[in-house]
Amino acid sequence: MTATALSADTSALDTYMERLGIAAREAALRVAQASTAAKNEALRATAGALAAERAMLAEANARDLEAATGLDAAARDRLTLSPARIDAMIEGLHQVAALADPVGAITDLVRRPTGIQVGRMRVPLGVVGIIYESRPNVTADAAALCLKSGNATILRGGSEALHSNQAIAACIRQGLESAGLPSAAVQVIDTPDRAAVGILLRSPQFVDVIVPRGGKGLIERVSAEARMPVIKHLDGVCHVFLDASADHDKALRVAFNAKCQRYGTCNTMETLLVHQAVAATLLPPLAAQYRAAGVELRGCAASRALVPGMLEAVEEDWYAEYLAPILAVRVVDDLDAALAHIRTYGSQHTDAIITEDYSRALRFLREVDSSSVMVNASTRFADGFEYGLGAEIGISTDKFHARGPVGLEGLTSQKWVVLGDGEIRT
Amino acid sequence: MTATALSADTSALDTYMERLGIAAREAALRVAQASTAAKNEALRATAGALAAERAMLAEANARDLEAATGLDAAARDRLTLSPARIDAMIEGLHQVAALADPVGAITDLVRRPTGIQVGRMRVPLGVVGIIYESRPNVTADAAALCLKSGNATILRGGSEALHSNQAIAACIRQGLESAGLPSAAVQVIDTPDRAAVGILLRSPQFVDVIVPRGGKGLIERVSAEARMPVIKHLDGVCHVFLDASADHDKALRVAFNAKCQRYGTCNTMETLLVHQAVAATLLPPLAAQYRAAGVELRGCAASRALVPGMLEAVEEDWYAEYLAPILAVRVVDDLDAALAHIRTYGSQHTDAIITEDYSRALRFLREVDSSSVMVNASTRFADGFEYGLGAEIGISTDKFHARGPVGLEGLTSQKWVVLGDGEIRT
Repeated sequence: MTATALSADTSALDTYMERLGIAAREAALRVAQASTAAKNEALRATAGALAAERAMLAEANARDLEAATGLDAAARDRLTLSPARIDAMIEGLHQVAALADPVGAITDLVRRPTGIQVGRMRVPLGVVGIIYESRPNVTADAAALCLKSGNATILRGGSEALHSNQAIAACIRQGLESAGLPSAAVQVIDTPDRAAVGILLRSPQFVDVIVPRGGKGLIERVSAEARMPVIKHLDGVCHVFLDASADHDKALRVAFNAKCQRYGTCNTMETLLVHQAVAATLLPPLAAQYRAAGVELRGCAASRALVPGMLEAVEEDWYAEYLAPILAVRVVDDLDAALAHIRTYGSQHTDAIITEDYSRALRFLREVDSSSVMVNASTRFADGFEYGLGAEIGISTDKFHARGPVGLEGLTSQKWVVLGDGEIRT
Repeated sequence: MTATALSADTSALDTYMERLGIAAREAALRVAQASTAAKNEALRATAGALAAERAMLAEANARDLEAATGLDAAARDRLTLSPARIDAMIEGLHQVAALADPVGAITDLVRRPTGIQVGRMRVPLGVVGIIYESRPNVTADAAALCLKSGNATILRGGSEALHSNQAIAACIRQGLESAGLPSAAVQVIDTPDRAAVGILLRSPQFVDVIVPRGGKGLIERVSAEARMPVIKHLDGVCHVFLDASADHDKALRVAFNAKCQRYGTCNTMETLLVHQAVAATLLPPLAAQYRAAGVELRGCAASRALVPGMLEAVEEDWYAEYLAPILAVRVVDDLDAALAHIRTYGSQHTDAIITEDYSRALRFLREVDSSSVMVNASTRFADGFEYGLGAEIGISTDKFHARGPVGLEGLTSQKWVVLGDGEIRT
């Protein structure tokens, strides 16, 4: 391609992205004011369209799968829109429709000595940008949460899922239009040009917040380039600490579940910390459980002395997010040592203590600076559905704005409202 | 200066700033866990030290004033630590000590179907950077709010206030130490080197949030350079809209107060919008009030037809934050036109409607996307003290995290806490 052709292309892409941004801003104004009934109607009509267009969805997905010759089996699986996954999208839309509308809720309204009443009203953020990789079902899931919270959305899926995403987007448009809402409330970037992501990330005039969903590489790129706030988590290096006063059965049950219920999720335990006083009683039976499940153990010297044949953990193991049947194990002197380990190696995602000691439970809750901190419960509970949010757009390990699982509320903000009767300031 | 000397200096500054940052991070861990009693003791002891060291403060301030030959009268006044201003700092410290401690509060604790209890605990943000200009009293005011909310602080005042700020910092150190808290919990950058600000803004590893306090130039620079979240407002272009159904007396009272109670504050009305149906009855008496107060009026054609001698408003007037006895006036067709004007020209700070109409009041509250939206009250109420926050670190016109007046709560975040009894996920 000649320099002139490239520059013409670049300018066409800029124009396309600007048109998208302007349309999103205009749609955001209308969606912010839309009634709950209209938003729910759009969600249910989209569910209806997905159900009616199964053949079209399958065909579009087949085109993507056919073109995606370079993908490994796991990536192909993520890209596949099976009938069960279409059912899940439909079910998800109905679930979001059934959630309470957060927009417009006024809380904490109090009368001040001056006579004014002061409170806070929940309002949408504006335009949410979603950047994701191969799973096309994110298109429907993320669009539903953004719409219900009164935001417009610009979605950018993986280029390998382009046809599938466009097919889903067509159903969403149908749903929006049948409810009288602007179709630009949900827009899918439909060019495979990778430069589109860069333009989106540099457009704070059009996008109020970016949510990247995908692997670490994607999230790092988005964090580095975005000129607007990002809701993200980079790593889930989650810990379970078995305290000296841990109940034996709870310790075994939770430590096993936190690792083995699913290996590939961000809230899976990656390092087990065990108080020296209970290591001899807890580690051998736990090791037997893990081995039976096929989990490879990598331990400190003290752990290895108690569990023959355990591999040696090196410094990198304490930082590792395995997302696999591997577990790092460390015996620690006391609660302080456990807290120091979590502070040094953790990723501020989710950490749990197993203890029957009241004061140590409170200290752990207060001192661990992670988005979710738990006592006597599996780290696997750190999830929007489990917390009662209904669904989640992502999990944030940042401290600003939203922390942990982010649902509808995390896609909104609060403004102050003042109800007066002619009061003036003196 | 030779290139070698410059580079040695740069490296010395880098080392100094890194030492400051590391000390702040360490102190933040301890302050986050400090008891309410210890934090309050530090605040009260600082107040005591300021009272005991009046002579030292006056002497340091005199040195700054002596050196500040280039400042105009207003800037010299801001720089002056009068006995009344020292009293105000002391009083402010006692007020913050009397506020409820936000840290550790658990809210919304609910039991989920799985048996776990899920809630949120309020926690400090970590290290707060404050960049301000000539008022040395900000040193004590901002440090107090950050300490009470469990954060460490790095303060950078105007170079012309260096000695005053160091004198206040010495009193704060005394207060911290007498309460057994680390003196690095509040650090004042004590080099006049302007490069220090740039280094601070590029250090997200040491600073979690930046609060710039000062003129527009400072805030724009901080926003552009900061690599961490910024709590800021750029402009206060505030509106009062007198609706067709406005009560005559409330309209006159509020519209006068919103402009004239103080001219130089960000929540002062800068543009008055008047519904055409009431312009003829409201504008002439209002104009007489404003003129008696010495306020210059700049109006649209319709306004000028009703108020002889009113100057003509040009496009820039609708965008203007005068911070002066000047007011832009525009007659609008209806509520929609008022909303469109605020959307186009406003700065999302504070806007008010004066109306007796229920539906239009609700529409204004819901549709105006500003950090404070008011019905029948003066925009001058948009303030931390007036809202009951006790004190404010600043006012934010951003949507993320904190909006409007930001008090102790805005300097904190919420993490999820899970209280279980051995529950696992299935």
